[in-house]
Amino acid sequence: MASSKPLPNLKDLTIENITTNVHAINAQTSNPRLRYIMERLVTHLHDFARETRLSTDEWMEGVKFLTEVGKMSSDVRQEFILLSDTLGLSLLIDSLSHPKPSTATQGTVLGPFHTHTSPSSTQGATITHDPSGTPLLCLCTVSSTSGQPLKDISIDVWETDSKGVYDVQYASYAGQPNGRGLLRSDDEGRFWFKAIVPVPYRIPDDGPVGKMLHALGRHPWRPSHVHFLLEGEGFETLITALYLRHDPYETSDAVFGVKDSLIVDLQDITPEQREMYGVEGDGPCKVLTYDFVLVTEEETQKLRDDEARKAMEKLGLWGEGWRIVDGLPVPDVD
Amino acid sequence: MASSKPLPNLKDLTIENITTNVHAINAQTSNPRLRYIMERLVTHLHDFARETRLSTDEWMEGVKFLTEVGKMSSDVRQEFILLSDTLGLSLLIDSLSHPKPSTATQGTVLGPFHTHTSPSSTQGATITHDPSGTPLLCLCTVSSTSGQPLKDISIDVWETDSKGVYDVQYASYAGQPNGRGLLRSDDEGRFWFKAIVPVPYRIPDDGPVGKMLHALGRHPWRPSHVHFLLEGEGFETLITALYLRHDPYETSDAVFGVKDSLIVDLQDITPEQREMYGVEGDGPCKVLTYDFVLVTEEETQKLRDDEARKAMEKLGLWGEGWRIVDGLPVPDVD
Repeated sequence: MASSKPLPNLKDLTIENITTNVHAINAQTSNPRLRYIMERLVTHLHDFARETRLSTDEWMEGVKFLTEVGKMSSDVRQEFILLSDTLGLSLLIDSLSHPKPSTATQGTVLGPFHTHTSPSSTQGATITHDPSGTPLLCLCTVSSTSGQPLKDISIDVWETDSKGVYDVQYASYAGQPNGRGLLRSDDEGRFWFKAIVPVPYRIPDDGPVGKMLHALGRHPWRPSHVHFLLEGEGFETLITALYLRHDPYETSDAVFGVKDSLIVDLQDITPEQREMYGVEGDGPCKVLTYDFVLVTEEETQKLRDDEARKAMEKLGLWGEGWRIVDGLPVPDVD
Repeated sequence: MASSKPLPNLKDLTIENITTNVHAINAQTSNPRLRYIMERLVTHLHDFARETRLSTDEWMEGVKFLTEVGKMSSDVRQEFILLSDTLGLSLLIDSLSHPKPSTATQGTVLGPFHTHTSPSSTQGATITHDPSGTPLLCLCTVSSTSGQPLKDISIDVWETDSKGVYDVQYASYAGQPNGRGLLRSDDEGRFWFKAIVPVPYRIPDDGPVGKMLHALGRHPWRPSHVHFLLEGEGFETLITALYLRHDPYETSDAVFGVKDSLIVDLQDITPEQREMYGVEGDGPCKVLTYDFVLVTEEETQKLRDDEARKAMEKLGLWGEGWRIVDGLPVPDVD
């Protein structure tokens, strides 16, 4: 229901009174969640301008920057997501939306290169056609927080090629996925596939976000990692990635995604593993092992609600009539 | 100079510690003003997400919205300026950047339709070719705050046609200005021209900003007005507009621009005025009179510096080593 308060008299607005007047006119919306989001957005936008005394020239630079970010965005390159990633917003949103108990595998940023094109792969499939990479045998399991192996979990995996470039980033890309696979866990919760050892790469820095990083004296590198997205009925979708220990960018990821529990130590393949998993030849090959742990949707929903309520109380934003709906705070209606 | 603090260890970032870590990595910039702006920007962006518990879906809606705003923007339609206008940010930025003593004419929002194409017009020129509008004779003066008439002030004027549409908004627009004039004040500080009585108009609401207004239950109308931009050597540029009293949108301007001191009462033309200003025929014609008062650059600079310093102190943001440079607060360098 829309606010029943009288509409404001929008005249003679000043540095001091503009914010409450914008709130009053926006309060006409019938959507209480939107009203709350707009109230916080306008407050922070105006406070930002007041606290910096933002000049007309700086404002215009901001307008031009955001316009460029929009114009640079396409189906295969989302520059606003990149901006969100490099400002730490994506990591924050992921943490807010996908809380995890300490017993579960931690999530991290999705990044802008997930597609819905990973080809269905059979157990043990090779997901990359790049002959220049160092072969990597990935031996994984997935279980519940109570230690029960989980079968029939869908696992979407993606990584760059040996040059640090995702398939969709090539101008020549014509819808043929490379470095992507869609697997399924077996009855014992196992899944395994053949990939290449990931390498560090630069986030696309030839656009406005790259210019921003340059002005801030920041590098555009991400440490070597493989992305994973695990989905199974009744379980909270896990968006995560595994990072290599001792990567040169291990502690300076341009998008703030590294977590200690997601760092792995690769091993050299053993002759027994070569035989068991059908790794041909005797050239170098590394092995990555990881045991993923999923939490149920129910558990996550409860955690999300509890954390939202606790956080709102701590921020002093919780009041009479407030509710948590699907983990999101919604204020009382007038 | 860049911060000499050690770089942070960017790992295991959480809802609680992400903000200080993004600040630390951004502090590498050698530009202290940029560092301050980014520090405030990231703080407000993150606080906004934390206070709303912004969900992944809502974040993605935001990403798509901003992308659309960028894609909608062109040389003749700046949707990000429209967004800024409708969120009250433009009015706020204008008030911060262009403080005025109470003796001077108040400024207001520039809007997205100013061009640099107004044709040089002689005194008394007709600036619109729209035969459907009600003729309006504008009789103005410009003086300093001490009452001195100012000669050789350049006055850029623009308004819509009688349908409420600016020349550049027509798909058929081919660089031929209409509803625009560039005048100059005479030795007694006078300038006068022939226009049409302005009408209310909708801001362009067929794009993402229009969708936002709709979701908020807000109308897209601006009250009838004529824009003025006055420039003269040694004087602060005055960006303002004059509004008609009793306009249906007088107290609900979609972009928050109306100020009481900028509202005018039109008069019917007298036979003497018809003769004196060469208004042909005896059809209806209105007269607008206004006396603009400009403030010097020097006075404005002082006012801007004083207000910036006072505001920063009031916000508790002023500390040792802070300086005001061109009206903008700049923090101390480490």
